[in-house]
Amino acid sequence: MANITKKVSWSSRGDDSGLAGEGTPLLNGTEIPKPSRQLSGSGSVFRIGRFSTVDLEDDITSEEDPIRGRPKEIPHNEKLLSLKYESLDYDNIENQLFLEEERRMSHMGFRCLEISRWVICGLIGILTGLIACFIDIMVEKLAGCKYQVIKENIEKFTEVGGLSISLILWAVLNCAFVLVGGIMVAYFEPIAAGSGIPQIKCYLNGVKIPRVVRLKTLLVKVLGVICSVAGGLAVGKEGPMIHSGAVVAAGVSQGRSTSLKRDFKMFEYFRRDTEKRDFVSAGAAAGVSAAFGAPVGGVLFSLEEGASFWNQMLTWRIFFASMISTFTLNFFLSIYHGKPGDLSNPGLINFGRFESDSVAYYYYELPLFMGMGAIGGLLGALFNSINYWLTIFRIRYVHRPCLQVMEALLVAAVTATVSFTMIYFSNDCQPLGPEHNEEYPLQLFCADGEYNSMATAFFNTPERSVRSLFHNQPGSYNPLTLGLFTLTYFFLACWTYGLAVSAGVFIPSLLIGAAWGRLCGILLASFTPTSPIWADPGKYALIGAAAQLGGIVRMTLSLTVIMVEATGNVTYGLPIMLVLMTAKIVGDYFQEGLYDIHIKLQSVPFLHWEAPATSHWLTAREVMSSPVTCFNRIEKVGTIVDVLSNTSTNHNGFPVVVQVLDSDEPAKLCGLILRSQLIVLLKHKVFVELARSRLSQRKLQLKDFRDAYPRFPPIQSIHVSQDERECMMDLTEFMNATPYTVPQDTSLPRVFKLFRALGLRHLVVVDDENRVIGLVTRKDLARYHLGKHGLEELQLAQT
Amino acid sequence: MANITKKVSWSSRGDDSGLAGEGTPLLNGTEIPKPSRQLSGSGSVFRIGRFSTVDLEDDITSEEDPIRGRPKEIPHNEKLLSLKYESLDYDNIENQLFLEEERRMSHMGFRCLEISRWVICGLIGILTGLIACFIDIMVEKLAGCKYQVIKENIEKFTEVGGLSISLILWAVLNCAFVLVGGIMVAYFEPIAAGSGIPQIKCYLNGVKIPRVVRLKTLLVKVLGVICSVAGGLAVGKEGPMIHSGAVVAAGVSQGRSTSLKRDFKMFEYFRRDTEKRDFVSAGAAAGVSAAFGAPVGGVLFSLEEGASFWNQMLTWRIFFASMISTFTLNFFLSIYHGKPGDLSNPGLINFGRFESDSVAYYYYELPLFMGMGAIGGLLGALFNSINYWLTIFRIRYVHRPCLQVMEALLVAAVTATVSFTMIYFSNDCQPLGPEHNEEYPLQLFCADGEYNSMATAFFNTPERSVRSLFHNQPGSYNPLTLGLFTLTYFFLACWTYGLAVSAGVFIPSLLIGAAWGRLCGILLASFTPTSPIWADPGKYALIGAAAQLGGIVRMTLSLTVIMVEATGNVTYGLPIMLVLMTAKIVGDYFQEGLYDIHIKLQSVPFLHWEAPATSHWLTAREVMSSPVTCFNRIEKVGTIVDVLSNTSTNHNGFPVVVQVLDSDEPAKLCGLILRSQLIVLLKHKVFVELARSRLSQRKLQLKDFRDAYPRFPPIQSIHVSQDERECMMDLTEFMNATPYTVPQDTSLPRVFKLFRALGLRHLVVVDDENRVIGLVTRKDLARYHLGKHGLEELQLAQT
Repeated sequence: MANITKKVSWSSRGDDSGLAGEGTPLLNGTEIPKPSRQLSGSGSVFRIGRFSTVDLEDDITSEEDPIRGRPKEIPHNEKLLSLKYESLDYDNIENQLFLEEERRMSHMGFRCLEISRWVICGLIGILTGLIACFIDIMVEKLAGCKYQVIKENIEKFTEVGGLSISLILWAVLNCAFVLVGGIMVAYFEPIAAGSGIPQIKCYLNGVKIPRVVRLKTLLVKVLGVICSVAGGLAVGKEGPMIHSGAVVAAGVSQGRSTSLKRDFKMFEYFRRDTEKRDFVSAGAAAGVSAAFGAPVGGVLFSLEEGASFWNQMLTWRIFFASMISTFTLNFFLSIYHGKPGDLSNPGLINFGRFESDSVAYYYYELPLFMGMGAIGGLLGALFNSINYWLTIFRIRYVHRPCLQVMEALLVAAVTATVSFTMIYFSNDCQPLGPEHNEEYPLQLFCADGEYNSMATAFFNTPERSVRSLFHNQPGSYNPLTLGLFTLTYFFLACWTYGLAVSAGVFIPSLLIGAAWGRLCGILLASFTPTSPIWADPGKYALIGAAAQLGGIVRMTLSLTVIMVEATGNVTYGLPIMLVLMTAKIVGDYFQEGLYDIHIKLQSVPFLHWEAPATSHWLTAREVMSSPVTCFNRIEKVGTIVDVLSNTSTNHNGFPVVVQVLDSDEPAKLCGLILRSQLIVLLKHKVFVELARSRLSQRKLQLKDFRDAYPRFPPIQSIHVSQDERECMMDLTEFMNATPYTVPQDTSLPRVFKLFRALGLRHLVVVDDENRVIGLVTRKDLARYHLGKHGLEELQLAQT
Repeated sequence: MANITKKVSWSSRGDDSGLAGEGTPLLNGTEIPKPSRQLSGSGSVFRIGRFSTVDLEDDITSEEDPIRGRPKEIPHNEKLLSLKYESLDYDNIENQLFLEEERRMSHMGFRCLEISRWVICGLIGILTGLIACFIDIMVEKLAGCKYQVIKENIEKFTEVGGLSISLILWAVLNCAFVLVGGIMVAYFEPIAAGSGIPQIKCYLNGVKIPRVVRLKTLLVKVLGVICSVAGGLAVGKEGPMIHSGAVVAAGVSQGRSTSLKRDFKMFEYFRRDTEKRDFVSAGAAAGVSAAFGAPVGGVLFSLEEGASFWNQMLTWRIFFASMISTFTLNFFLSIYHGKPGDLSNPGLINFGRFESDSVAYYYYELPLFMGMGAIGGLLGALFNSINYWLTIFRIRYVHRPCLQVMEALLVAAVTATVSFTMIYFSNDCQPLGPEHNEEYPLQLFCADGEYNSMATAFFNTPERSVRSLFHNQPGSYNPLTLGLFTLTYFFLACWTYGLAVSAGVFIPSLLIGAAWGRLCGILLASFTPTSPIWADPGKYALIGAAAQLGGIVRMTLSLTVIMVEATGNVTYGLPIMLVLMTAKIVGDYFQEGLYDIHIKLQSVPFLHWEAPATSHWLTAREVMSSPVTCFNRIEKVGTIVDVLSNTSTNHNGFPVVVQVLDSDEPAKLCGLILRSQLIVLLKHKVFVELARSRLSQRKLQLKDFRDAYPRFPPIQSIHVSQDERECMMDLTEFMNATPYTVPQDTSLPRVFKLFRALGLRHLVVVDDENRVIGLVTRKDLARYHLGKHGLEELQLAQT
């Protein structure tokens, strides 16, 4: 059972940490979870006892329950908080080496750095734009071929009968594409499944999701999304662009590829979490920008999801990357489409041109829009709930790669069959105008000069279907067609999201919404007999699309701006905002947003914007982890190796304390050092004794830490001889000498604010003598959340 | 000389603090500046000595220079940092009272608070929209009457000769309006002068600018801007909307008006700086939104200028306020214009409709646009430099209200004269089409059926002139007209900004830019003989307007979005961004942005986004103020009164320390208390002895502090008898028990980041025994800035 979670969980492989996450089942635990917050062994380590207080009793009980080995019930994993995710360090490690480097650097040096930041952002924009371009052209080519072949086949068999052969052809073609995509994702890089937005959200939030910004992930993601869209699944190619942009950014900004083992010796200054995060924000923004032609929306997306600290220059750089990305995509697509220099068709999806004259709205329509927002919120909550249960089912039973690929194939076949059936039984024939927009009009059983209207929705890439729903003449669809389409596509899309294929949920949501929105428009027009000019079905399709998308993903400001930019018309700002707001309020009442659900199901220690409102009665003393493993400023190598090798704790940050000589006063905090730093020190054998004997030895520099970043070797790979174990290590130069601290009585919201605003990883809790009494990390804060019955605490688990 | 600065300086009157800022001249100091960072007297106060270190020598010398009474040279005041501005507390004061209240509050209670926040934001939006509506209608009415009268007069005298009478009429009408506006501003509320954007920037940054969010300021601002626009000055009515929105927000959110002495007993929870700031952000955004019809631009403006910590819910509320404000304005304006329900004309200024078909741009135009951006940057820098010297001149010589009013009258008369002369000598006659857009076409010496083209630019409100430049047919202006107009209007606008009238600089900038942009378009078209479709003068007018505005105000993302929203066309996003970026880079090379110049000239301790790049060699020990005045946890009333009454220090935050009984160990930090809190305590006589004798006495509650907020009485107004001076005060319950602290070796960037990200007012510097050794406040951080020769330190002054 131990590998149940291996393919479904984001951080399954554990090849990064080397130790964490192996051998403990996620759900149906038969093994006893290991003690998580208790340090065992390593006798000589300086340890500081748990601060005793009566308030703590409850806490202790609930924590130590698993230690006693009889967990009463293994809860659902959204009630768990996984301990296997590490945090990123968004706070600079200001040790002596770093400060010396900064002090050496001249004003001109900082200016050069600033220029290289701009250059990198430009590169990110260009590369992201090119990737978007590649995906777009490939999808268009492949889907074009596929639909052409099927269309000819259907036309052939419509006359002579035997359309089941066409169905089989369609299903087989779909399955072939999906098979390729599914195998790549399931066998080579499971993290590339889905849209990648939840993973990027977590990354920007400060959670290290293993392999999420690797080159391999990018390859699988890009090829995978081409396969799934060409394979006719109910998916979009927009979500994955955000992930792709982020990977590009993480790669370019480091000036090397660890996967390809190439180091260009560039941008070495940026090899740390803080700088990398800024670039990844830019990459995500560039991705949104390329996907929707929405540069401002992209910036807002990045800020909404990631940046807690708004910095004007950073924002401006992110905007630059976004703009460049849209521009690159447009430029190359305009050449591809044979209209070089025409930059007016931005983005992978664009909603076509809404002329504000023909589809202006009136203020008395606003309540109608809000009503549609409510419907969107309800349908979104339903979608999310179904997908939630489906995901739980998948985590439990569909965990092997082969099962995952088979499920994907099944979905592909079912999608083809359902589409075919719907088209086959539809009798909604529409006249084929001279300047028809349909790429592949299917005549089927319609009269000559007419086409099957259901086929414009099903027999098409989803992007084109959305545009048809927005812009086709009133009367292009009859209500039954739209109703049936909404119903089937809703369930297909819901089933598809979460499959082991690379795919986004934006376009399916828009498509569902556009369908029922258009239906609303038609019904409204039929209720008001004088055929009013305002009930334009295209306008209602747009509103419906916004409502449905808002109901599913629950993004706020950024989504409004993305929608406005995609329509290219500012006039719709107010209605879209109202609709999204209503959808969010209604939807939040029933169920969380889709991305949040998936983040929760992975038990990621995600920090929200603020501490839960009712958490003022908790203090740092109650939330902190203790006892804390501390090191002395000059510590024995053996002790350090033992602590680092202790698989039961796997701590990553260690306060450094100093003991006053010849005194029994307790030791005082004087710094903080990270596991990764200690490992580099051990690898380079920076021991006091060796330094004395080999005076000429090169001093360890910041470069050595940067070279090892971000894949620090595990402690097991470092050999320390018995003699060396007796040596001493001087941590003074390498520790962060001024870690942020809080007194033990600080309230949780205050701790939370400090932690979140500064992007911390470790926050030391001290008493009024400056002695370490605890350590607050991400999991300590993330486990409190506001449930139905007030403040709830998630259980920590090694899963 | 002492009152030189009284009317020019933002914080001149000193009626808030009661003590600060009186009697010390701003520039030509004859008095000796008082010691600023040294505590004198009050013998019994517990004081902690200056931490001795050799590094400090330089610092001490430069600081103590003024104390010795021989300042060698009074520097320009942009090299000074005024000590008279107080900080706002954007960090919650988490004392026991606060925590008890929060803990008592249920989940439902927090939800109600959240709902009231939304209600307040809605109210802010509605009121701001109504104010915008009022300004717009009043300006239109008044300017309409004025121009009609003058037009008739001119027409009368064109035939018979004696046009000088028309000129005199024009000048007199202008002066009449400006006189009213000038008197109101100069005599009643000097803070209402200008656009108010620098003041709001400072407020959101955390600097308390006295009287900036008062009701009186709002009244003067609104009436003043109507007068100055109707008075024909080269000003816009948009900037003041931002200030107005902020005042509305500050008023509404407090549920009372201190000026009107009305307390509605509502929203008492929001009576503190943190909450008020959030609402003021919303108000500023609503103001932008109403001014430009740019709700997203408004949100970005608020975030760019103010919020350091991005919070999703807050942003969403700000957006709501913005949307409501645009909607309200549109709704009422549409009724006023007789087209109820037509919401497609957003904002006070809108740029009219740019049809993307006719004025699409091509990628080979982008370099042209960037060239125009560079011109805009240069012209902007010139504008700012001239205005800078003018402002220095004004600070020195034009300080009395009567002089200020006279200068305003002079400008009004000159504006009228110059306009008249330009129109009079222009011979640019254009045919008057059947559907002409001109509101007041002046025929003057043109043939019948023609009108004077120069008059469309000068004889009009600036908003209309901008629209004409954007949208009039190619050929409506000849190049000479545009060139002359640019030249004269440039200097007029430059002279006007900084006058003692309420006025914005956005529209004049746009107008200058539109004029030379259109000129560029015409010249480009004339160079390319085949009369190309792309060189549309309206498009180039738009680009020029963006370039000029960007060159003057140097806003980035928000300005891009505002421009895009005002044009209503997303297509122009990329060119506008490129133009603004070029303008900013070029402009920054020569001179700062206009708002920053004015902030600097007021010596405001403004905190930028990050610490100067080369400041890593500074540590908390070097930047902090010391010695620090501390109080004991249980302190003698007399001591407290003495410290608070000490006018030479006027400290606002006091660390609270606890001395271990019967021990000579130094005292440890245990809290932080503010002057305002102590004053409330003294006023309510919360003394230990009295509490014992009167057991039934009502306990002091948070409400008492909220009632006193924000105008806490000065210490002089509180009578403490000689007996009471011997009483003791227990500060335990009222102090913030968990103030943020940093060790003394923390580098300046790290201190800065903590201070800025959390919006702190006081940051305690402690040694490794948790003893207070210094206090970092805003002025300690703001005085370091990056000059031409590396890091520079501003001098502190009591001005």
